[in-house]
Amino acid sequence: MVLRDGTDSIQAMAAVAEDVPKEMIDFIGQIPCESIVDVEATVCGVEQPITSTSQQDIELKINKIHVLSEALRVLPFTLEDASRRETDEGIKINFDTRLGCRWLDMRTPASNAIFKMQSRVGQYFRQFLIDHEFVEIHSPKIIAAASEGGANVFKVGYFNRDAYLAQSPQLYKQMALQGDLKRVFEVGPVFRAENSNTHRHLTEFVGLDVEMRINEHYYEVLDTAEELFCYMFAQLAKHTGELEAICRQYPFEPLLWQLTPERIKELGVGVIEDSVEPTDIYKARVRNMGTRMLRIHYPHCIALLNTVLEEKLSPTDDINTTNEKLLGKLVKERYGVDFFISDLFPTAARPFYTMPFPDDERFTNSYDMFIRGEEISSGAQRIHDSSLLLKRAQSLGVDLSPIKEYVDSFRLGAWPHGGFGVGLERVVMLYLGLCNVRLVSLFPRDPQRVTP
Amino acid sequence: MVLRDGTDSIQAMAAVAEDVPKEMIDFIGQIPCESIVDVEATVCGVEQPITSTSQQDIELKINKIHVLSEALRVLPFTLEDASRRETDEGIKINFDTRLGCRWLDMRTPASNAIFKMQSRVGQYFRQFLIDHEFVEIHSPKIIAAASEGGANVFKVGYFNRDAYLAQSPQLYKQMALQGDLKRVFEVGPVFRAENSNTHRHLTEFVGLDVEMRINEHYYEVLDTAEELFCYMFAQLAKHTGELEAICRQYPFEPLLWQLTPERIKELGVGVIEDSVEPTDIYKARVRNMGTRMLRIHYPHCIALLNTVLEEKLSPTDDINTTNEKLLGKLVKERYGVDFFISDLFPTAARPFYTMPFPDDERFTNSYDMFIRGEEISSGAQRIHDSSLLLKRAQSLGVDLSPIKEYVDSFRLGAWPHGGFGVGLERVVMLYLGLCNVRLVSLFPRDPQRVTP
Repeated sequence: MVLRDGTDSIQAMAAVAEDVPKEMIDFIGQIPCESIVDVEATVCGVEQPITSTSQQDIELKINKIHVLSEALRVLPFTLEDASRRETDEGIKINFDTRLGCRWLDMRTPASNAIFKMQSRVGQYFRQFLIDHEFVEIHSPKIIAAASEGGANVFKVGYFNRDAYLAQSPQLYKQMALQGDLKRVFEVGPVFRAENSNTHRHLTEFVGLDVEMRINEHYYEVLDTAEELFCYMFAQLAKHTGELEAICRQYPFEPLLWQLTPERIKELGVGVIEDSVEPTDIYKARVRNMGTRMLRIHYPHCIALLNTVLEEKLSPTDDINTTNEKLLGKLVKERYGVDFFISDLFPTAARPFYTMPFPDDERFTNSYDMFIRGEEISSGAQRIHDSSLLLKRAQSLGVDLSPIKEYVDSFRLGAWPHGGFGVGLERVVMLYLGLCNVRLVSLFPRDPQRVTP
Repeated sequence: MVLRDGTDSIQAMAAVAEDVPKEMIDFIGQIPCESIVDVEATVCGVEQPITSTSQQDIELKINKIHVLSEALRVLPFTLEDASRRETDEGIKINFDTRLGCRWLDMRTPASNAIFKMQSRVGQYFRQFLIDHEFVEIHSPKIIAAASEGGANVFKVGYFNRDAYLAQSPQLYKQMALQGDLKRVFEVGPVFRAENSNTHRHLTEFVGLDVEMRINEHYYEVLDTAEELFCYMFAQLAKHTGELEAICRQYPFEPLLWQLTPERIKELGVGVIEDSVEPTDIYKARVRNMGTRMLRIHYPHCIALLNTVLEEKLSPTDDINTTNEKLLGKLVKERYGVDFFISDLFPTAARPFYTMPFPDDERFTNSYDMFIRGEEISSGAQRIHDSSLLLKRAQSLGVDLSPIKEYVDSFRLGAWPHGGFGVGLERVVMLYLGLCNVRLVSLFPRDPQRVTP
């Protein structure tokens, strides 16, 4: 029998010490915390609950005990200290110290539960997609030219030439789709050589990427994304054990991702709310009474912000991160949800390959998803017409020559298509209401940290 | 309605041309192959099967046709040419040309089916592990020091310092396990800066990695791997449509991964065959009558080889790739299977962190799995005792200072553990009996190729 779940196994053994010989008590007393022991014991009921352990209703009468792996007598930190809430009294462990010894930090109930939840986000993401006939692809991470023509790429020495680390599988998933895979997805690392030292930026993170054929309309993409997230959130909410473990150290409100039926009725079914301006694109709505997730158009987001901002924004102005947070708050107040989709992003805020919105060229067929006022996913219809692609790149001053093959892939009959990307760590962080993306990255990478 | 599956949609339309106006026939005749069209049509039965198309029992009476995306009039190659068997007469397309235009190559039935099968290998791999309480992790690909202390790593410029691309998640999955995740797995890219230009080497490929606690014995790892592969092979065999499509262009014999019950009876149940030498480690056996997969010890492999080799090998000699192929042939002849597990690898052939075989220090608790005479997976128990680890590293001259944290992770109470790694592309290649790993890598990377 192998024992160690948390720090309490040694105490559990000490609790029954009165029944065992003194030599064994002395021996047990000498075993450092966090050691792993083999125990041969008899499981017994107890008369009164044992309060010092997590298993309170039984105890072990030890016959034999053997130390399988002895821990250092002085640990880098105790699990008790590393499990303390920020607001609690007592020693707190510096976050960098915990990250430097992640294999110890992960033994705290919250950290351990976080990584189990992270695993499940990936699991449900793939499960939904496989159930909807998506094919998993693996695109190269070492590429010849900076993808999406941008800066912020890591350079790699590649057999006497330079190569780069892919910033996203964007171009490759589109090319795979033109190879007559109707719907594809990828789960893999993406790399950003961005010198951002914030709570939400990593230089390496896990991208969940989707690309699919469009048969009739761009909204097929958005509908798929919406149903995917609805499925994921519903599944994640079932893991109450892990959620409670995390909440004990990092208190958070459960994510409200659906409007209540009452709220929808109150605001009018289908179209939830009348807009500030009369056109359709200023309306908020719920597409699907199953998902009951909120969709608002970008201009409506601006209108919402303008109800409180002193300096008014125009419908095509970019929303900075401060205003994103504010928008999240305003949406929560008005609609009662932490999750929403903002659709029809302005052209200036999107990459060259984004399909223009047919009714108004100031906007694009593209959206962002937000949790608690922070973006977790971006999606769009892509331009599948190589001449339109060239035109858009030209007007934005994007040099397509390094990604000539990408443009060429649309010249041999190209499916209308679209897709989206999701940051795994961000979804986990924001679903759990955590304050730092490093809490959900096993061995996080940022400009300052490339170890352990 | 959108039409294009293979090259036959245009022909399908031409086949019904007699019923449509001449203008439309002319228009249709002008549409280049591989274009994507919207068709409004009436589906009708046919009097005699149409032999020129894949859908033979119905035809479309076209009312309207609209070209959604026009292909170039001259394609880089035709799908018919790219679909030809190596042994068939007619034009064959140079493999580099096909890889340079993968989005076209992928439209051939075989290539398309290969990538669907690849997706399923990953799917079944994860499905099995999730069903067996494994947690998915994501370890960093950018690391500070060359993992496993080796050469052949790609160097990355990382904010004014050097970093490297991980050659495997080996050390990280072990560290994650010491963080009290009982069983972990990872699916992700691994990078090898090896200047090998062979049919089976890539500089970037997808690693399927597993690591788990051992409660009693190393064979828990081997049993898990065996059951996993048995599950995967059984699931893959169900996809007869894809397997047939691949077989039409690349003929292969279905993989025989289990001994027949007759063969087991013939050779004696449990222990299949008596050995050349009397000790246990020279015996071949089937552990599990459910999986019926062959396990032979390394010395038995040597003994098998020695039945035909002129220059005899000793039980601890390394088996080179030529002899691996030969071994595969000998095993097939004797046991009737394409798949086998070779257990108890010699110490000299394994990395420093491999657990020695307790009964004979010339060997280790480690194994390889082979398909058709090529290795697809390596597994082992790892050393979880930091002093033994140091001792082994010292005796092999491995400098552990760059991976000090790895050694330290075993000092805080370390679980006995083991695991294995699988090369996704190799499994797909060898399961399908293909001759080149590039056939199963979407955008393969080798020393000569870093595009598209």
